[in-house]
Order: sequence, then C-alpha cells, then structure tokens
Amino acid sequence: MADELILFTNPQSRGAMVHWMLEEIGCPYRLEVKQYGPDMKSAEYLAINPMGKVPAIRHGDTVVTETAAILCYLADIFPEAKLAPPPAERGAYYRWLFFVAGCGEPALGNKAAGWTPDTPTLQVQFGYGSYERTMETVAQLVADRRTIAADHFTAADLYMASFLHWGMMFGGIERRPVFEAYAQRHVGRPAALRAQEQSAKLMAAPAQPG
Amino acid sequence: MADELILFTNPQSRGAMVHWMLEEIGCPYRLEVKQYGPDMKSAEYLAINPMGKVPAIRHGDTVVTETAAILCYLADIFPEAKLAPPPAERGAYYRWLFFVAGCGEPALGNKAAGWTPDTPTLQVQFGYGSYERTMETVAQLVADRRTIAADHFTAADLYMASFLHWGMMFGGIERRPVFEAYAQRHVGRPAALRAQEQSAKLMAAPAQPG
Repeated sequence: MADELILFTNPQSRGAMVHWMLEEIGCPYRLEVKQYGPDMKSAEYLAINPMGKVPAIRHGDTVVTETAAILCYLADIFPEAKLAPPPAERGAYYRWLFFVAGCGEPALGNKAAGWTPDTPTLQVQFGYGSYERTMETVAQLVADRRTIAADHFTAADLYMASFLHWGMMFGGIERRPVFEAYAQRHVGRPAALRAQEQSAKLMAAPAQPG
Repeated sequence: MADELILFTNPQSRGAMVHWMLEEIGCPYRLEVKQYGPDMKSAEYLAINPMGKVPAIRHGDTVVTETAAILCYLADIFPEAKLAPPPAERGAYYRWLFFVAGCGEPALGNKAAGWTPDTPTLQVQFGYGSYERTMETVAQLVADRRTIAADHFTAADLYMASFLHWGMMFGGIERRPVFEAYAQRHVGRPAALRAQEQSAKLMAAPAQPG
C-alpha cells in the first residue's frame, strides 16, 4: 500500500475542508484524528508537520501541509475529478486560492483577535490591506459568479465557500446575502454532507489516546 | 497582441518577485509601474485589482493577483521554463508556496507591526501558530535542502528565497546562517540580477503621472 492516503485531521479544524475534498474525489483514504494539545505536538506528528497543526496528508512518501496546498495537490493527482481547471487556465484558480490563504484568513484572524492594521503604512505592509477591503473584494467576486475559477465547481470554490461558511458561523464574518448565497450553493453538495456526517460521528466517539 | 503580458508593479513591492520570475522565463513582457497612493487606488487600476495593490498581471484576458498565484500561473503557462514540477509531483511545491503566503508573510507582518498572538487559543486560531514556530519550520526545511520542491530550482525557491532575503533586509527576520545560505544561493541568479538592474533604473527615473 505504498500510495495509501492518510488525512491527519480534527473534526473541528480546517481539516474538514480536506475531508470534503476527499469525498468530492471519491478516492480511498483513511482519517487519523489528532487531538489539540500534546497529540498534535508529539514528536511523531511533528515529523509530519513541524508546525504541529492539522490538516496534513501523507500519500505514499509525499507529505503535504497547509489546507489550500493539500487541495491543489489532490486536484492535480486526481485530474478525473475535474476539481482544477487545465494548467493553462488557472489564473483565477490560483488567484482566489492564494487570496483566501494570504488575505482572507490573516485578515479574519487578526480581526477575530481584536487587532487590525489601521495606519496607511501598515496597510501597505500587510498583503491584505484591511479586513473591510478584503471582504469587499470577496463580495464583488461572488456576487457575479456561481463559481469563481471555471464554469464548474473547483477546489477554489470549496475553499472560498468553506472560508465564508465557517467564517460566518464562528469567526465573525458578517452575514451578507451575497456571501450566504454563494456559500450555501456549495456547502450543501452531497460530498460536503457526507464529510460532515462522518465528522459528527467522530466527534460523538470517545477520543483516542494520542 | 491578445496575449500581451503586463506586470503592474512597483520596484519597492513584492512585484519584484514576479519581475524576477519573468526574467527566469525569458518571455516578452511589459512593466507598468504603479505608484503607492492614488495611482494604485484609481478606478482604472481597481478594475484590475480591487485590493488596490501590486503586483498584478494581465495576460490576454486573464488577470491574476497575489504574488504566489502569479508565480504558479506563469510556471504553468510556460512549462518549458521548468519552474514547477510535473502536476503529479507538486506536494512540496504547493506546500511551501502556501506556507510562505499563509504562514510566513502573516507571521512576519504581525511581528513587524509589533503584535503577536500569544495565547494558546489564538495560536490555534492562527494558521501560523507563532512567528517562532513558523521560522523554525523554515530553518529545518532549508538547512536540509538546496531547493525545496524538486531537484532543481522552482517558483517555490524563488518565493521562499525572496521572502527570506527581503525579510532579513527590511522586515525583521533574524539573520540565521541557514537562511542566508539558502537565500544567497538563489537571489544571485542571473535572472534575479537582471530584474534588480531594471528596477534600479525605474527607481532612478522620474515617476510617471498615474
């Protein structure tokens, strides 16, 4: 089983996005739940991800960390799932994946923690400028489009819809109708629901020792 | 000229990374310098990038923003430059590109601004955990390897080396020997030097009205 695909995750983490992705693809995989705290900081797990966080995947000899990186990797190795556009047409795909990872998440994280770069100098230094400009950019994007990177659903939609959905639920993103319409269109996909059901069972089960 | 390639940039911005990338590729391109302030916030430029920042590229009808996204796009449309591994072998490539965009830059930005998430709860919320853990992960990575995503130089090296090099020069990354050795190996490449020379000339020239 050289190419066994293992997702190291916690149901209450961004690993849920990768779990959904795996259900979209329909490939065989195994979940390995890591608990927050010592389990994620064990020497064994730090050898997989020195950041001591989930998600991570191991696929044969390849380890991938960072949620969006895992989505891109999986889209490429399972091209039949059509979750990435062809290589020559990936401008919008990469643009919005890196936008969420490099602007959306940091802007939301800082806002949720009560800290915002509020001087012009800081707003130039920070890739995301300001939380407001970041979310206004997202609003313009999703108001116009059912899908953001191709004429069909891709990993970029999975990532953007997850960011908006969980952000509105837990992270303090304001509930704008354009965000809700776009996110709901995607987070109700059968593959997303299957992943959520499996996660609910994992959370109901007693935690495994780390 | 449907496929003209334009880089909107400022010599004192992350656009320098894309400039270097274009010199690595050797394709025809045109630079359009945007000044900080009103020029980047003009209606005309906001139609290209609603974030009002550089870099951005326009290639035919395709607009791409976010430095790392532009690097990925260019690597894919100019495969003969071999700046990305083949699609089935991109685990490390995506991993470290998203790591710099989603952990390195935000961790450094917050540190430079004098703010760090310093409670366990915040460190779980933030993708990067802490600045120290982020840079320790980079140190482990580059101590072991001349290149980080393949057995040859790729866009992931261009991005990581630029992050470390400019971070040590301007942004407050500590000068560790492993960072300096890795960064110097790459930022002295002929293509990087050509881009720097062109930038120096642009900075010496009087600014164009926006």
